[in-house]
Amino acid sequence: MKKRLDLKAYQQGILSGNRAILSQAITLVESTLESDQELASDLVQSLISKTGQSIRIGITGVPGVGKSTFIEAFGKMLLDRGKKVAVLAIDPSSQLTRGSILGDKTRMENLASDKRAFIRPSPSGTTLGGVSGKTREAMLLCEAAGFDVILVETVGVGQSETAVKNMVDFFLLLMLAGAGDELQGIKKGIMEMADALVIHKADGSNLELAQKAKSSYQNALHLGQESEKSWNPKVLLASSTTGLGLEYVWELIREYEEKMKGNGFWETNRAQQRLSWLDDQIHELLGQAFFKNSQVSELLTKEKPQVRSGELNPGTLAKTLIQLFLSKN
Amino acid sequence: MKKRLDLKAYQQGILSGNRAILSQAITLVESTLESDQELASDLVQSLISKTGQSIRIGITGVPGVGKSTFIEAFGKMLLDRGKKVAVLAIDPSSQLTRGSILGDKTRMENLASDKRAFIRPSPSGTTLGGVSGKTREAMLLCEAAGFDVILVETVGVGQSETAVKNMVDFFLLLMLAGAGDELQGIKKGIMEMADALVIHKADGSNLELAQKAKSSYQNALHLGQESEKSWNPKVLLASSTTGLGLEYVWELIREYEEKMKGNGFWETNRAQQRLSWLDDQIHELLGQAFFKNSQVSELLTKEKPQVRSGELNPGTLAKTLIQLFLSKN
Repeated sequence: MKKRLDLKAYQQGILSGNRAILSQAITLVESTLESDQELASDLVQSLISKTGQSIRIGITGVPGVGKSTFIEAFGKMLLDRGKKVAVLAIDPSSQLTRGSILGDKTRMENLASDKRAFIRPSPSGTTLGGVSGKTREAMLLCEAAGFDVILVETVGVGQSETAVKNMVDFFLLLMLAGAGDELQGIKKGIMEMADALVIHKADGSNLELAQKAKSSYQNALHLGQESEKSWNPKVLLASSTTGLGLEYVWELIREYEEKMKGNGFWETNRAQQRLSWLDDQIHELLGQAFFKNSQVSELLTKEKPQVRSGELNPGTLAKTLIQLFLSKN
Repeated sequence: MKKRLDLKAYQQGILSGNRAILSQAITLVESTLESDQELASDLVQSLISKTGQSIRIGITGVPGVGKSTFIEAFGKMLLDRGKKVAVLAIDPSSQLTRGSILGDKTRMENLASDKRAFIRPSPSGTTLGGVSGKTREAMLLCEAAGFDVILVETVGVGQSETAVKNMVDFFLLLMLAGAGDELQGIKKGIMEMADALVIHKADGSNLELAQKAKSSYQNALHLGQESEKSWNPKVLLASSTTGLGLEYVWELIREYEEKMKGNGFWETNRAQQRLSWLDDQIHELLGQAFFKNSQVSELLTKEKPQVRSGELNPGTLAKTLIQLFLSKN
């Protein structure tokens, strides 16, 4: 049994910007214990009026693109501008790659040591819905604790980008020049979600290559973009070593914020995200309750091989399982 | 109340290849009435040992690419080779576009009039999970009725391709030469799912353009392909007017079948699809039962605006709703 505070202590700690208590509160939110979930839900709800004022920025890119160094340099620049910065990570495969995510945390030493920053490694949830649900609540807690900029980092593995896109205001894709789309594992679908594409490591002998890549990516980005928000995604260069472009990235994000608040997309998008979050959470919790049910899981274990081999109609087993579940609750 | 047969009558009708009864059975499967669902489930399960022997081919492409004419010409060629061909449509937006789908059916006159063919327009389900679940069961019924080739047509709107990919053995993407990726609304993600890409309308003055497009698409297709099945997706030309390429498409599919049966991917893939179908059905039916619950829907209607505006934590409402749902069942 881990150490737990009471609701009041969490509230006061978070509202006073206490990073240790914020961290414990996020642990509470990530807990799968029923009593913890109860308390976590009450805590988030009690702080809800103190949330929503930050800019939520999703950052993605394949391993090797330098997400950690970018976030560290970008975050440091924001601190210098008087912002309070929180970094959250979302990683659906976190149980496998936990080491590397914790490694990331260690690598962001400069940022982590600054008390105006808060860095939280990836949650340990097992499902994507679960992870993103918990990352969303962690984000709200960071906002209640007074952080103005939330950077949500994702490991580039397909599904997690969609989850992050669905919880942030601005979605930024980091790329490398000359590595080739296929080597970077960048799917066009992900490029289409991006509000900006940043060609990272644009320094030294790489700079010229990065400049060339910029125009070709700019063209690619225009394809298939959603027009509802009237935003043409931009391509920028950046270097975490020289600092090149970091301020431009921030200015672009501010420009985006201003424009989207002006045309109403900002709030429409957030409202939509909240409803989609509700939907995710309902399905997540329903599924949890279902698969936790011992009679359900017993029958499922027994009959699954017949479904797998094609002897039992999946729809027939599903119906039987649901009937069993609903009759026993 | 629509006309219903008894289980035995459906079984015998289907096993004897009676297309009218097959059609009625699919209507039964698509019904949302609880008593119909019960009977449908029993029917599919009772025929399950007679299923699985067909080749299931998914066909997608944006409107205008000529899916109906391709399916008609391709289907006709298969009939000439002694195959029995069933055509099913999956369309998550079917309630809106119903007219056009029924129009498609009318346009496939040659195929529809041949008694070795069976054409079924899109189901009228409202959710994608529901639609694909029902299309899957319709597919099994067609197999039990002796059809050797099942063509599953999808309207090109993002999500439906994934649903179709997940229920077929071979996934074919129709494209046009010279129309440009962006005009065709083709996402790279969809190209990556394709086992073959067919450049359609490769006839007349279009032929040269189609030949040029072939090599550029061939390159694009190689990016990011899954290697587990060791299959390099091919690009072929086809014309439904001249008949060019139709036989090559079929030969390619047969080559694929032989190779995948040889390396075990065929059965692995189907087993995986059955489990994923089970999972879909469980979540679909759970969600149905949940949202149908009157106390749940009452509270949801009342509290949703507060979630939307950000006053109520989505996770908190989700938890309350689930508790309500489980306590009342």
